[in-house]
Amino acid sequence: MKIALAQQNYHIGNFSSNTNKILDAIGEARKQGADLVVFSELCVCGYPPRDFLEFDDFINQCYAAVETIAKVSVDIGVIIGSPARNPAKEGKDLFNAAWLLYQGKVQGVAYKTCLPTYDVFDEYRYFEPAFEWNVLEFKGKKIALTICEDMWALSENPLYRVCPMDQLIGQQPDLMINISASPFDYDHDEDRKEVVKANIRRYQLPMFYVNCVGSQTEIVFDGGSLVYAASGELVKEGKYFEEDLLVVDLEEMNNLQQAPDEVIRLLDKDMRVSKIEDPEKIIDYLTAENNIRQIHDALILGIRDYFSKMGFKKSILGSSGGIDSAVTLALACEALGKENVRAILMPSQFSTDHSVNDAVTLSQNLGNPYDIIPIKPVFDAFLESLAPVFGDLPFSVAEENIQSRTRGNLVMAISNKFGYILLNTSNKSELATGYGTLYGDMAGGLSVLGDVYKMQVFALARFINREKEIIPNNILVKPPSAELRPGQKDSDSLPEYEVLDKVLYQYIERRKSPDDIIRMGIDDSLVQRVLKLVNTNEYKRNQFCPIIRVSAKAFGVGRRMPIVGKYLS
Amino acid sequence: MKIALAQQNYHIGNFSSNTNKILDAIGEARKQGADLVVFSELCVCGYPPRDFLEFDDFINQCYAAVETIAKVSVDIGVIIGSPARNPAKEGKDLFNAAWLLYQGKVQGVAYKTCLPTYDVFDEYRYFEPAFEWNVLEFKGKKIALTICEDMWALSENPLYRVCPMDQLIGQQPDLMINISASPFDYDHDEDRKEVVKANIRRYQLPMFYVNCVGSQTEIVFDGGSLVYAASGELVKEGKYFEEDLLVVDLEEMNNLQQAPDEVIRLLDKDMRVSKIEDPEKIIDYLTAENNIRQIHDALILGIRDYFSKMGFKKSILGSSGGIDSAVTLALACEALGKENVRAILMPSQFSTDHSVNDAVTLSQNLGNPYDIIPIKPVFDAFLESLAPVFGDLPFSVAEENIQSRTRGNLVMAISNKFGYILLNTSNKSELATGYGTLYGDMAGGLSVLGDVYKMQVFALARFINREKEIIPNNILVKPPSAELRPGQKDSDSLPEYEVLDKVLYQYIERRKSPDDIIRMGIDDSLVQRVLKLVNTNEYKRNQFCPIIRVSAKAFGVGRRMPIVGKYLS
Repeated sequence: MKIALAQQNYHIGNFSSNTNKILDAIGEARKQGADLVVFSELCVCGYPPRDFLEFDDFINQCYAAVETIAKVSVDIGVIIGSPARNPAKEGKDLFNAAWLLYQGKVQGVAYKTCLPTYDVFDEYRYFEPAFEWNVLEFKGKKIALTICEDMWALSENPLYRVCPMDQLIGQQPDLMINISASPFDYDHDEDRKEVVKANIRRYQLPMFYVNCVGSQTEIVFDGGSLVYAASGELVKEGKYFEEDLLVVDLEEMNNLQQAPDEVIRLLDKDMRVSKIEDPEKIIDYLTAENNIRQIHDALILGIRDYFSKMGFKKSILGSSGGIDSAVTLALACEALGKENVRAILMPSQFSTDHSVNDAVTLSQNLGNPYDIIPIKPVFDAFLESLAPVFGDLPFSVAEENIQSRTRGNLVMAISNKFGYILLNTSNKSELATGYGTLYGDMAGGLSVLGDVYKMQVFALARFINREKEIIPNNILVKPPSAELRPGQKDSDSLPEYEVLDKVLYQYIERRKSPDDIIRMGIDDSLVQRVLKLVNTNEYKRNQFCPIIRVSAKAFGVGRRMPIVGKYLS
Repeated sequence: MKIALAQQNYHIGNFSSNTNKILDAIGEARKQGADLVVFSELCVCGYPPRDFLEFDDFINQCYAAVETIAKVSVDIGVIIGSPARNPAKEGKDLFNAAWLLYQGKVQGVAYKTCLPTYDVFDEYRYFEPAFEWNVLEFKGKKIALTICEDMWALSENPLYRVCPMDQLIGQQPDLMINISASPFDYDHDEDRKEVVKANIRRYQLPMFYVNCVGSQTEIVFDGGSLVYAASGELVKEGKYFEEDLLVVDLEEMNNLQQAPDEVIRLLDKDMRVSKIEDPEKIIDYLTAENNIRQIHDALILGIRDYFSKMGFKKSILGSSGGIDSAVTLALACEALGKENVRAILMPSQFSTDHSVNDAVTLSQNLGNPYDIIPIKPVFDAFLESLAPVFGDLPFSVAEENIQSRTRGNLVMAISNKFGYILLNTSNKSELATGYGTLYGDMAGGLSVLGDVYKMQVFALARFINREKEIIPNNILVKPPSAELRPGQKDSDSLPEYEVLDKVLYQYIERRKSPDDIIRMGIDDSLVQRVLKLVNTNEYKRNQFCPIIRVSAKAFGVGRRMPIVGKYLS
């Protein structure tokens, strides 16, 4: 039996586009002689559909799509993901379901048991967990069909009290198929392989794992579908950050030798907490080349898909001559094409000449259009209008913010005039500490670097420059500054980024307590100051745009904090 | 046995403040001769603690508070809400728990079974549902102790497959106690009574229901704790929107006669969908005086608690002479004191004289400080700076937005200079349709009217004026306008609010399909245009500040939509 895995990029709620993609892949799989073609979780409506699932009309459209797809399944089996209505009165109205279609109709349905409801996931918000399990038969083979998280319940310490494969294995299935929508983070691809291998070790069956690809606002899916033989051998691996179609012969696979024994990590329920314990290794880990390359690719896909799915082509951003805007600009040019990225240089009276020169050189290197609009005239007009209210109060953060918001206003005006999307250039270290101005440098439609710590931004810059100097070296070596008052440096307000990022990582990614972090040898008052900044700036992040997620714990939908909370603040 | 219910206003994560409040109420209950004093759900840490629950240190602090409170329980029983660690390896690490303290120590714990994970709730994100049930004994009485949603699983069509009271009733309890954190919406108080009565009817036991009060960022808790006799008689009802302590004698209650039979509504799992079917009655329902009075009280509490819990005293807002800012200003003066609300009038060249006059009269009526800052000089400076980029392109939405953002920048500058919080004045109809400017009139730290439809804003204005004219009548009668271009009216861009609000209510509160709404007699193209506006403006609302929630479906944390989604758009 030949099985095809279709790794595709869907658009949430865009039923006609998703259905056409699925029909195309069925055609291609048929052409390649496949008996069965398998698609990813909720492929019909795109993942995650969020509260669209509360609209009965939306569910009707899912059912209509399933019906359309079933019609072409006359001569080829098809497994797709789509919500299913719960026939019982009790419990939530929907299941997250995998549908087996064949001979023009629905042959069987499997429901998801383990419903991830943590980080960016909200599945229990919509779905009832499965409480009955049956293998599905197809051409004489018994398929243990599960959905994404269902295969992650294997450790001694699982997040769920029921393991669906443990329920299915008694029915003697011939193979396991898992349809997923498993988001990228720079830790996750290895975890995924460990989990698949742990399933094979435990159940001694071949495993077909299909993931989607593409970015949905903030969540990036990286593909990397997998086929493993029962022997433990990796038979096929899907591309990363690209669509793919894998076709595999089940019988050939089953003839494979036992793979050499290896130690398999069982991932417990804390698996999604990043793994670096040793504080001395944190920065090395954050900036490791393999991680930075993956982040780079994820950000490119995240930018590109956001624009294509929103129906936009052109972007704009403020280019300050600093490292954050430089990296954002370089990534945007790669994602959208240099002609589609307009840089706006907006020097103030506190900007150094080299900032403007660096920003000009950068755009010359990249070949993207740029304009220079000094902000002093508008800034002065603001000060004059505010003089009756401000009186002779000294220059303060208010005046700094006016400059930043003047810039925000200028780029938004150009964005509105020409129909561009403003790319935000804030990094994760700034967002964590509230070192940014609401409606100023925090403005934008999409945050490119909001899940990338400052030390990682530098590493990304070096990665971008790996073959030639695209980002002028001066931008990499000068001390970071917001340039909103004379001689200002980030280090006037914040600890050195090497220390700051270490503290932030321990607190945000690993949820460590202040005492834990202090015990790692970091100064007591520094830790308390940083955590207080993180917790008192929740109100700012709450108004921030979507952030392309690359880590196991990004700001935004995956981190939900009370705003009026009073904890470590 | 005398039982006291303590209805209190907690602050999330503020353990010392919450513990002190609890200790005070224990003292007061003891003074009034209570044997047992009952507090609301998660009172120790405040509700909802959200992702603070992921911090082990936070849970340790909860345990420490339980221990402190247990120490004073020597001579009086105490029931409090606080998370409990799950002793099993499988499943989530925590339970949402009710703790019975007495004789200085923990006597028993009950775990929550039904974990609301819809709208503003995320409980399954953190908690494992209970799977064992036991009554707790106190002074010879068996208590069936449940937590909030646990009592809502009674209908023929419940959201949960297990009903904890059905499990407990076999152990022959003497009374039911339910500790809640049940948010306000203008439908909800009646539902709550129906549910309590349905429990009494079914289990024939007296019921002690304690709710918290106070606002946590966007969620308002309205109190209204309840004591019902087994006979069905309402024995005591807590105050609404205020703290309270109810003390009741259980034996006296049990002597009460059977209450007259009445029809009890069983609320099914769609109970939280608003109930008005008849499209002709929607506006009457939305603006009914009882609803408007409740909304008024909830907004006052919402403003007041946001400021006190954030540690702020003074507010600022843009006062345009329109109805939204007028109502916001009047509510803020009532909540914070007129001397703590600074109105900034920022006329443009398109503002009519009467707008400024109306805004001045309003502040004179209210007695709050105000300033007038014309925006033309800054607007002109922007246009001049942008001239090289804009060339001779015609006046467009870009120029409109520059004005709005200039205002945003001016009020934020004053806010930053003096440490004020900017109150946002956008209403729900505008937010729904995207009729507002990001970083302009959409700026602010807290949205007062973001869950109040425009027709309700008018009704609120009439309510505020019920005794004397506070909001100048001219503001109520003139056609709404943003005044960003000559002669502009809202009705140039939007349907009349009476029709618009009807469509929005059907779509947002009731999740109706376009066909459903068209069948109610509303024009086809109008419906499609409005729903498209709602769905394509998700990206704007995503960057909006917290909205005080008064309806069953507010924008913000309770409504989670994909931004790159393509559905009815």
